[in-house]
Amino acid sequence: MKVAVSRKEHFNAAHRLFNPDWSDEKNDQVFGKCNNPNFHGHNYELIVTLIGEPDSNTGYVFDMKVLSDLIKKHILIQFDHKNLNIDVAHFKSLNPTAENIAIVIWRILRQHIDTQYDLKIKLYETERNFVEYPAH
Amino acid sequence: MKVAVSRKEHFNAAHRLFNPDWSDEKNDQVFGKCNNPNFHGHNYELIVTLIGEPDSNTGYVFDMKVLSDLIKKHILIQFDHKNLNIDVAHFKSLNPTAENIAIVIWRILRQHIDTQYDLKIKLYETERNFVEYPAH
Amino acid sequence: MKVAVSRKEHFNAAHRLFNPDWSDEKNDQVFGKCNNPNFHGHNYELIVTLIGEPDSNTGYVFDMKVLSDLIKKHILIQFDHKNLNIDVAHFKSLNPTAENIAIVIWRILRQHIDTQYDLKIKLYETERNFVEYPAH
Amino acid sequence: MKVAVSRKEHFNAAHRLFNPDWSDEKNDQVFGKCNNPNFHGHNYELIVTLIGEPDSNTGYVFDMKVLSDLIKKHILIQFDHKNLNIDVAHFKSLNPTAENIAIVIWRILRQHIDTQYDLKIKLYETERNFVEYPAH
Amino acid sequence: MKVAVSRKEHFNAAHRLFNPDWSDEKNDQVFGKCNNPNFHGHNYELIVTLIGEPDSNTGYVFDMKVLSDLIKKHILIQFDHKNLNIDVAHFKSLNPTAENIAIVIWRILRQHIDTQYDLKIKLYETERNFVEYPAH
Amino acid sequence: MKVAVSRKEHFNAAHRLFNPDWSDEKNDQVFGKCNNPNFHGHNYELIVTLIGEPDSNTGYVFDMKVLSDLIKKHILIQFDHKNLNIDVAHFKSLNPTAENIAIVIWRILRQHIDTQYDLKIKLYETERNFVEYPAH
Repeated sequence: MKVAVSRKEHFNAAHRLFNPDWSDEKNDQVFGKCNNPNFHGHNYELIVTLIGEPDSNTGYVFDMKVLSDLIKKHILIQFDHKNLNIDVAHFKSLNPTAENIAIVIWRILRQHIDTQYDLKIKLYETERNFVEYPAH
Repeated sequence: MKVAVSRKEHFNAAHRLFNPDWSDEKNDQVFGKCNNPNFHGHNYELIVTLIGEPDSNTGYVFDMKVLSDLIKKHILIQFDHKNLNIDVAHFKSLNPTAENIAIVIWRILRQHIDTQYDLKIKLYETERNFVEYPAH
Repeated sequence: MKVAVSRKEHFNAAHRLFNPDWSDEKNDQVFGKCNNPNFHGHNYELIVTLIGEPDSNTGYVFDMKVLSDLIKKHILIQFDHKNLNIDVAHFKSLNPTAENIAIVIWRILRQHIDTQYDLKIKLYETERNFVEYPAH
Repeated sequence: MKVAVSRKEHFNAAHRLFNPDWSDEKNDQVFGKCNNPNFHGHNYELIVTLIGEPDSNTGYVFDMKVLSDLIKKHILIQFDHKNLNIDVAHFKSLNPTAENIAIVIWRILRQHIDTQYDLKIKLYETERNFVEYPAH
Repeated sequence: MKVAVSRKEHFNAAHRLFNPDWSDEKNDQVFGKCNNPNFHGHNYELIVTLIGEPDSNTGYVFDMKVLSDLIKKHILIQFDHKNLNIDVAHFKSLNPTAENIAIVIWRILRQHIDTQYDLKIKLYETERNFVEYPAH
Repeated sequence: MKVAVSRKEHFNAAHRLFNPDWSDEKNDQVFGKCNNPNFHGHNYELIVTLIGEPDSNTGYVFDMKVLSDLIKKHILIQFDHKNLNIDVAHFKSLNPTAENIAIVIWRILRQHIDTQYDLKIKLYETERNFVEYPAH
């Protein structure tokens, strides 16, 4: 009788996509305008999903207020109004694609969510481009 | 060759979250402002999904007009513009969290949908908080 | 060179529409299911708009953070997770229709916004029903 | 470490639902106003999802620009601003229900997406009616 | 103390844009893919706005249920799941652009709404293209 | 018989808010996290509205395809996937607040739109913060 519960949050950040091992030409060819060395940015929409059984005393799988606070404390403070490439240590040597941002968020939150819950991340970079990790 | 088909409906309802076995202090601590004894309310968005094979004569898995009518008849008439705690018998002794509302809706509709179809419920309490049952 | 700047906030509340001077029959006839004596509720979306000239030092007409804080302090604390009829003094003898809620919000905020700014309120009761005050 | 990556596109098309083997009465009974012989139409929202592992050099599962171009080349040019029944060969003898449109799009795109990627289609006929293929 | 009250409805229709006085070449040049002689279609979102003073007995400017019924009776029955060029008399000799559809809807509804109310129409042909009549 | 016609486009950009005449302390106090010297970013949604009379031959106030191309040519090429402070000349000495971005876009487009049309800009920096110029 498992239920998935989800909380949507958002953060606004700058980023640049490139591979430091490649030439400028190769980076331009692969990443196009996302390779602008002066950065561009997005309003990221983040959906965090936990799967578990509702508690019989509360009717909650997980308190959404607590989940929102966990996301603010462990993700938004680090990511919101930041330059992902420069300000966020996880992306010092990892390209901040939506795929990698979702995996990093999953790894951070996984440490703060009891293992009785499955954890999933959905991240909208724009309303037209989004990713889910882990894929089901 | 199974296809999932989904219909979105909505209902507006009042509710209050609390556990009658707990003190007021404990209820306030756990449910916070959701524990207002005078109730608060939401525009619930309900997505009902059926999974099955398209009929070769119609190209439909299930007629969305028929599904919409089933939802109206068995759910919306009971839930829309109601106080979930007072007006809906299922929540007389069950806390009307989004999790429990989704499970109740699933149980009601399951009786009216042929078992050849898998049934899933997605319920948005707000655009930031939503649940899915059963979880996959 | 006036610019309109807008901030969207939200609150979730219960309410009931009725006129205490009318019979139950008349209230049912006029307000239908909105007259449920046990209340129903909504996720209200509130857009507050100020019109003025951008400040030459900041480029702001008005700091959206400050506007958000004003809305939280003067509106959301009173309205969010409340029963509008019971918990909010303004509606003790005023029917909490979307029209009246918008007018009440305008009157409250007008006292806290400098008169150099025009003030407008847009209130969504549902995504299908919404009001604007003052009308232009 | 699989990630699902999704791209949303859209097309606007006319269609009519009917079964040529049936009488007009039967078609009216089953398909109702969707059986208008003069056609009606929709803004279809199409979400194409690929599932795979991020490439270690790019951080991409799949370049969204390349996916968008594939969708434009193989789907939108054929479907956008078209009459699905008349202009699109796949529906000459197949009823263009949302279910069948999603299956046709999946079959077309499957030929152009490397088999290392799982492929899923989500198609909104309206914001209230949508389908997913294959169902999970 | 005027308030604007708005109701959102929707209809799904096929149409074709062309000028019968022009050559096929000129129609193609001006209307492009919208000139497909086999039609294409849209999910039109229609917002009808009335402006007036709230009634002191009800707190309503206008009952949204009554407005919704007026729109259904006078617009949706004629327009929904129709071919605008063929099935709707108003467009027999009038190109069904979003601009003209909005003007036609305004003229129809104006006859059924008391003149104490200002009337405005907003029509989304897609989420990216929309019109308002009269313009303010 | 004037009609307003609107086209929605979008661009993704990085920016930083600050006043070079102010100390770091003052900039931090006024602009808060928007003053991050490493930049942050947004998905800007841009709505361009023209007001005029429909042409009797086309039924168009203005061809939305032509308007979309004008926006792409004069705005998006300069703004999309750019750092507004560094890459866009207009903001070399003008703080790229939403207010100022809207005014700059209006001034650029005004030169390319015939004066028979009124021109309005609506710019969403996030779904919660947006501006309109000129204000009405």
